Amino acid sequence: MANSNKHIRFSKLISSAAIFLAGFSGFVAAQETTEIIHDAEYYVLAAQHGDRWLTEDADIDSKLEELREKFGKPPNIIHIMWDDTPVGEVGIPEIQKMRGWETPVMNEMAADGMNLLRMYTEPSCTPSRAAAITGRHAVRNGMYNVGFPYEYGGLAADEVTIAEVLSEAGYATAFYGKSHLGDVTSANLNNQGFDEAIWSPYNQVPSLYVPAGQAHALSPAVMFPNMFPDDPYDIDKGWRPTGFVWALEGKKGGEVREFGTPPFDHEGYMALEDAFEEATLDFIRRNAEGDKPFFISWWPQLTSFLGFPDRVTPAGGLLQEALARLDVRVGRLRDELDALGISENTLVVLMADNGPMVHDGPVGMVETIYAGGKGDFTEGGVRVPAIVWWPGVVEPGQTVGDIVHITDLFTTFARLGGALQNIPTDRIIDGIDQTALLFNGDTYSRRDYNFIYTGPVLAALVKGRYKRHLVGAKPGLSGPEFYDLYNDPREASAKMLPMFPAKGMFNIMKLRHQMWIEKYPNQGQNRDYPFVDVVDARPEVAAASKPRINPEDLPFDPREVISRIPEWENIDARWGAQR
Amino acid sequence: MANSNKHIRFSKLISSAAIFLAGFSGFVAAQETTEIIHDAEYYVLAAQHGDRWLTEDADIDSKLEELREKFGKPPNIIHIMWDDTPVGEVGIPEIQKMRGWETPVMNEMAADGMNLLRMYTEPSCTPSRAAAITGRHAVRNGMYNVGFPYEYGGLAADEVTIAEVLSEAGYATAFYGKSHLGDVTSANLNNQGFDEAIWSPYNQVPSLYVPAGQAHALSPAVMFPNMFPDDPYDIDKGWRPTGFVWALEGKKGGEVREFGTPPFDHEGYMALEDAFEEATLDFIRRNAEGDKPFFISWWPQLTSFLGFPDRVTPAGGLLQEALARLDVRVGRLRDELDALGISENTLVVLMADNGPMVHDGPVGMVETIYAGGKGDFTEGGVRVPAIVWWPGVVEPGQTVGDIVHITDLFTTFARLGGALQNIPTDRIIDGIDQTALLFNGDTYSRRDYNFIYTGPVLAALVKGRYKRHLVGAKPGLSGPEFYDLYNDPREASAKMLPMFPAKGMFNIMKLRHQMWIEKYPNQGQNRDYPFVDVVDARPEVAAASKPRINPEDLPFDPREVISRIPEWENIDARWGAQR
Repeated sequence: MANSNKHIRFSKLISSAAIFLAGFSGFVAAQETTEIIHDAEYYVLAAQHGDRWLTEDADIDSKLEELREKFGKPPNIIHIMWDDTPVGEVGIPEIQKMRGWETPVMNEMAADGMNLLRMYTEPSCTPSRAAAITGRHAVRNGMYNVGFPYEYGGLAADEVTIAEVLSEAGYATAFYGKSHLGDVTSANLNNQGFDEAIWSPYNQVPSLYVPAGQAHALSPAVMFPNMFPDDPYDIDKGWRPTGFVWALEGKKGGEVREFGTPPFDHEGYMALEDAFEEATLDFIRRNAEGDKPFFISWWPQLTSFLGFPDRVTPAGGLLQEALARLDVRVGRLRDELDALGISENTLVVLMADNGPMVHDGPVGMVETIYAGGKGDFTEGGVRVPAIVWWPGVVEPGQTVGDIVHITDLFTTFARLGGALQNIPTDRIIDGIDQTALLFNGDTYSRRDYNFIYTGPVLAALVKGRYKRHLVGAKPGLSGPEFYDLYNDPREASAKMLPMFPAKGMFNIMKLRHQMWIEKYPNQGQNRDYPFVDVVDARPEVAAASKPRINPEDLPFDPREVISRIPEWENIDARWGAQR
Repeated sequence: MANSNKHIRFSKLISSAAIFLAGFSGFVAAQETTEIIHDAEYYVLAAQHGDRWLTEDADIDSKLEELREKFGKPPNIIHIMWDDTPVGEVGIPEIQKMRGWETPVMNEMAADGMNLLRMYTEPSCTPSRAAAITGRHAVRNGMYNVGFPYEYGGLAADEVTIAEVLSEAGYATAFYGKSHLGDVTSANLNNQGFDEAIWSPYNQVPSLYVPAGQAHALSPAVMFPNMFPDDPYDIDKGWRPTGFVWALEGKKGGEVREFGTPPFDHEGYMALEDAFEEATLDFIRRNAEGDKPFFISWWPQLTSFLGFPDRVTPAGGLLQEALARLDVRVGRLRDELDALGISENTLVVLMADNGPMVHDGPVGMVETIYAGGKGDFTEGGVRVPAIVWWPGVVEPGQTVGDIVHITDLFTTFARLGGALQNIPTDRIIDGIDQTALLFNGDTYSRRDYNFIYTGPVLAALVKGRYKRHLVGAKPGLSGPEFYDLYNDPREASAKMLPMFPAKGMFNIMKLRHQMWIEKYPNQGQNRDYPFVDVVDARPEVAAASKPRINPEDLPFDPREVISRIPEWENIDARWGAQR
């Protein structure tokens, strides 16, 4: 009975905000009051704090209305997200000084806004990007695998992106940069709610698909065709991959074309980054005036794996060189917003997509405060620098210790854009509206938990300062897999004895989470051939978009094989070996 | 010939500063111009930068003269040094937020002054404290071993301390807190240049010498006598130690008495810290006016190993709780300086003595940015938080990436106090005058190197961003013991191939260092019985101060045995096992 009452109180909380937004937001359709379905853990918090949240939300609605009246439209939103950077490496100049490089612009934006010190992402690129754009853990949207060329997969059509949510509420939307959301048609960003998009469907590995890259790979078994001599034993002519694309472009509902001009060389690859920046600034200029607010995902390509021929930082590491250059680009963006006079109606979020590539990564991609990196469920894999900059709205000089999850951006952006009603209510949305945190500051987060997945496997649970490792734990035993993140930030010294009471609590938390998955099942992986709708496909790209052997010459359907691509089957063995 | 000329130029550099100081410093004896003997590596830098340094020094002398005229005396100096804290844990509020605690006062002092991000100490307490007070690496002054009760040793009489150097130049000098410089008569701080002193001769281990401590030790073999029942097989009645002291007090040239009233209990131990603070504030008040500047070493006791019964931080770790409390004390010191109107003529240096006690340490004493801790030659063992605060003189808002070594305080304090001429010139002084860094800021350090010892063993070499491990290296091979500290701050990925040119450079650097030791040999260890001059010694303390068995009943001299106490004999085996 008590639970039921609290749930009703919580319903009022959501409905009130949605109705209010409908009241002042003339350019959106009539708002429904159906509830967003959050993860089970959220309701445990809402039952305890829902009354306070209602009060806060009323204040927030007033502030949003004031802003709307002042600027004539909801705020513009720019989400900048780059690769592989641990928390502390951007936004804390002292750490940069110790590491021999700096990003003065982004550090200044952190000082002029909010430095989020506990932003959790998923542990790697594709999962984080899919989580940001859908507001859902990658395990739910099927994007838990890091895409490589060819991935034969990508974001499913029936996932609802933040671009769709905001687009429907009247926003002009654009995507420029590295999507890493896959190579199939449904993953094309002009099919996922963006009015305009230029995107690279993979990570930076295709940067090695140039003569210099082939030398760089230092492998006599290098697979790029023009480096590979004739081999008399090489009898399968379709086995070695050809026809990668670096980037694609398209407009909402329109055709998709390759972006960038062959023949490919390293200079051409590096020029992509200029193009992404220029497109971003151009889109801003075109949309600064007028009734429509804009939403831009600018997810920089950052670098190639070949690096830069010159050095701009003392450290000189690949990532550090790339971020020092990105910082200059971000400076130009900030200058443009100031010059256009729209800074105070523009929220900019800057962040990385996951921890550093410490396993087999380039020089300088290392752990600092937290242990582990890309792919790991330890804090080093999932805690990234994150900066919120919104002059006149987000108070300067704030450092925030609250937990925020990358999916929270989805719901928070929707709230700011008056678009909560466009969020689907037939699936779990992990993202929590964190507008109260943006407006009120430290300790106003509505989340104290995180579920850390590696691939489809639930690897660790976080509740406040406490963490439990599930991968690597001994089944049936009270193992020592409990950590106090304040006092053991590197997860170096697992304890059971002093943290015994945490075991039962974590058990319940995990069971609630699993129960909710049974009620609202995860999306499966979405598999198909790549690039099937590229209208100007080069012959080798066209060849990649269909079976290389005529299916009629085979006793099986190669298209079915694609759908069977397995991933992460032996996750336990993998992690066992690393620990 | 070229070298000889450069050396002459360097001589001019030192002489010029000394002569100038003599000119305006009426209260000191006539200054000599004999050169300080630095480590060999310093002259390599002086040969390259001596001309610039001369120019800088002329400016510095003018500034010092201006200050002297303004305030009527040289600056007061307060050196605050506590235990076991890695760089970043104080002075970078963002890291504290991630760790669940804060030191707002000290962070503010860092922001209002200079945050030294690359202050090197020795790797453990006694060595660091001996290095700070003598301006010499612990290996040179014989204090390379961490003292435990009983140490049967301590700082030698013919070591010259900063208190002696400044005292001779007219300063009022005081020591309050943990000295950890040994239990023999020559280590008593009233014999080492301090006008007034209250000090604990050991680390915090004697805090366990109370009933609660004995329970806390959780060892059935606990050695404290009043916990130990009669044992019929216990036939050596002198073997189990008794008669530790917590603290001693004395005035220059006067008697030494025990400080603190038996019977000992935990409250009594914790009250020591109040006494140290009160003595510090009282000394400041008594010396604020008048012609004499003051020098105070306030080296807080910080905590006992029993911790605090209540919690003031979310993290709650022993060190964090202690530092949060120390921060309040430092706040009172700052308020006192402001209230007395002497802040602008008082330099305050705040720092830790070495990295965190990660080996067998309390909960929460952990690595963060750098790997390793107390006792280790990796960066985590020797890089500590360090803050310089001097309103009106040291510009606010500075972060400094230069290398500074704890011994540099000795020479810099002497320069500021017009006391360079009191530094002995018959031995190597590792400390470098870093006044140019304090006055001019980042990149003005006169040091780019460090020699890291563990005990008497040279364990690692640091030159700028480069580091070489010597302990653990394979003799005769080109092993992979070379590190790039910008890109590999945790010394996780040793490289030889890309850093091959560093090998020859490090070889020369090491050989120069060793050559200079042959010319100016190290002090040996200084061994004796403890507490021999405590005038109010309790019977058990008096018993500890002499052989427990009458030497006439023995076929050997137990006093000779003391002088043979070996330390660190199997250093290579020890480090081999840890790596």
